[in-house]
Amino acid sequence: MSRFFSEKFCQLTPYTPGEQPQDKQYVKLNTNESPFPPSEKAQKAATEAAAQLQLYPDPTCKQLREQLAALYGVEADEVILVNGSDEVLNFAFMAFCDDTHPAIFPDITYGFYKVFADLYRIPYTTPPLREDFTVDTAKYMACGKTVFLANPNAPTGLALSVAEIEKIVASNPDNVVVIDEAYVDFGGESCVPLIHKYDNLLVTGTFSKSRSMAGARLGFGFASKALIQDLETLRYSTNPYNVNRLTMAAGLGQLADEEATRRNCRTVMENRAYTAEKLEEMGFVVLPSAANFLFATHPAVDGGALYQKLKERGVLVRHFDTPRLSPYNRITIGSREQMDALLTAVKAILEE
Amino acid sequence: MSRFFSEKFCQLTPYTPGEQPQDKQYVKLNTNESPFPPSEKAQKAATEAAAQLQLYPDPTCKQLREQLAALYGVEADEVILVNGSDEVLNFAFMAFCDDTHPAIFPDITYGFYKVFADLYRIPYTTPPLREDFTVDTAKYMACGKTVFLANPNAPTGLALSVAEIEKIVASNPDNVVVIDEAYVDFGGESCVPLIHKYDNLLVTGTFSKSRSMAGARLGFGFASKALIQDLETLRYSTNPYNVNRLTMAAGLGQLADEEATRRNCRTVMENRAYTAEKLEEMGFVVLPSAANFLFATHPAVDGGALYQKLKERGVLVRHFDTPRLSPYNRITIGSREQMDALLTAVKAILEE
Repeated sequence: MSRFFSEKFCQLTPYTPGEQPQDKQYVKLNTNESPFPPSEKAQKAATEAAAQLQLYPDPTCKQLREQLAALYGVEADEVILVNGSDEVLNFAFMAFCDDTHPAIFPDITYGFYKVFADLYRIPYTTPPLREDFTVDTAKYMACGKTVFLANPNAPTGLALSVAEIEKIVASNPDNVVVIDEAYVDFGGESCVPLIHKYDNLLVTGTFSKSRSMAGARLGFGFASKALIQDLETLRYSTNPYNVNRLTMAAGLGQLADEEATRRNCRTVMENRAYTAEKLEEMGFVVLPSAANFLFATHPAVDGGALYQKLKERGVLVRHFDTPRLSPYNRITIGSREQMDALLTAVKAILEE
Repeated sequence: MSRFFSEKFCQLTPYTPGEQPQDKQYVKLNTNESPFPPSEKAQKAATEAAAQLQLYPDPTCKQLREQLAALYGVEADEVILVNGSDEVLNFAFMAFCDDTHPAIFPDITYGFYKVFADLYRIPYTTPPLREDFTVDTAKYMACGKTVFLANPNAPTGLALSVAEIEKIVASNPDNVVVIDEAYVDFGGESCVPLIHKYDNLLVTGTFSKSRSMAGARLGFGFASKALIQDLETLRYSTNPYNVNRLTMAAGLGQLADEEATRRNCRTVMENRAYTAEKLEEMGFVVLPSAANFLFATHPAVDGGALYQKLKERGVLVRHFDTPRLSPYNRITIGSREQMDALLTAVKAILEE
């Protein structure tokens, strides 16, 4: 830290992304990436866009907003496009939270919510997940706070139903409820249709998981036109050209191949069921996941030790070193070959 | 605006990017883009990266930082990479300005500085440019404020010497001085070497102009390691994967063809001299520009009217409708063909 750093950030603890070790090739199951490359249409579109890189991108992202809106059954001005969904979450914390609108999110969820709240010095409360890691929805009813819920939640993979979320949205008419659907395409139910019923609902999503574009950084938000306008005000006040030409083109290409996206999701869900079953056969407790990862623990093996031993065997999973999470590991669902490599390594470790 | 928008942003006026009309093909001289496509190496690298889009980019941007550092003669940890240089300017306003560190920048300069200051409710003063549009450097000496200077300045194109800037930096040892060198490669002098002498200097730059990559969104900042660390803290607290894989690859490709970049800059400077001479022959007053644009006015034609008539003839320039700027237009320097199209249109308008 320099002596010039504004005092308000001196205590800030930034987000820690999943490790990206360069020392060797790992079976990489630690950052919830897709095992499938993007559609060839996305690759072709990015290649074509590269020839016109000297020109700024369309700051309104018109074409891509229209395509995405059509796919999700909303209007183009009910959509905002961003440089990865972290950016729309950032804008939401800025736009809809302040001293009189504190934030609320579970104690165990996507780690960035806490960082955003700290960054903007927003007061927040974090009701604990229940013993079984489910969200205690009663805590969010008529709470008078800006609600942030990842659904499915991370790193648990557990999902709330749309009916449960609707109750929360309906009970907080004077506060925004943000539903982060980064992982919804792997078996969750989307709340997007509710944006036409509730003016206080923002649903965020990403091309990083189901659409195989984590490397392109393309996120989005759906909400009433007025909420989207607020977020656009912040986008135009920070980085109007936030989505670059290559990513925009790749996004359009990927949307033109929605069938591939759905097929990949089905494969991930099949591999998830397969992996969960095999892990349970080996004595693991595996939470029922609606996401592209599993959260699992073994009564006989410490979570941190398992993570470390897997890493030594070339398999990377994600371990969170906090009291309630440390017995577990979060395992991204990859290809069948990747999952077999994981299972083989786990088996060997258990037999050590 | 929704009823949920935090009160602190209700008065905010966002930045207005240059228009991107879609109604017809214009000779587009309004957003200071390069007339040249990026290097074929950049295009090839982006194409290759597109096949791996399912994987997150390296959040540390290690390889690109190292290459850029080598080119500019600094260390890799004296560099930060961002999603367009607006992002590093945003971080700088956050990091180095607050109630006790107000900002200072000229009344006429890059319009985004004011937006950032308003966004974060940072107090600021804007000393007027002198009558001849030069920066009144005395106003920045020992000013006890965080200084933002675009050098060359926009939309004037006028540059300060490194010696003049060094005096400002040296006279404000307890405040950060940010020099925005977006346009430096067209005849300005870079302050980057000064970062080793002054711990309070941040120099920002972009691949958007001289490196033909406005569409890719790649900006950077050079400063002492401690200043860079502060900016990195904010990057990791907002969007650690801010630079996507395609852009990172294209940036590396472009750096591998630095000769093409320098050749393109020389061509732009030749076309600038040519255009200025022709405009002066037609009676224009043209400010001596060190950037890839000209700022010009004609005693017999209103600036707004000229802008409008050029647009009708298919030539787009940028007009700023404020008292001191409205007699002028900012004209991006494009290819010789584009400049001839501009000159032909101007001539016809003057003869109307």
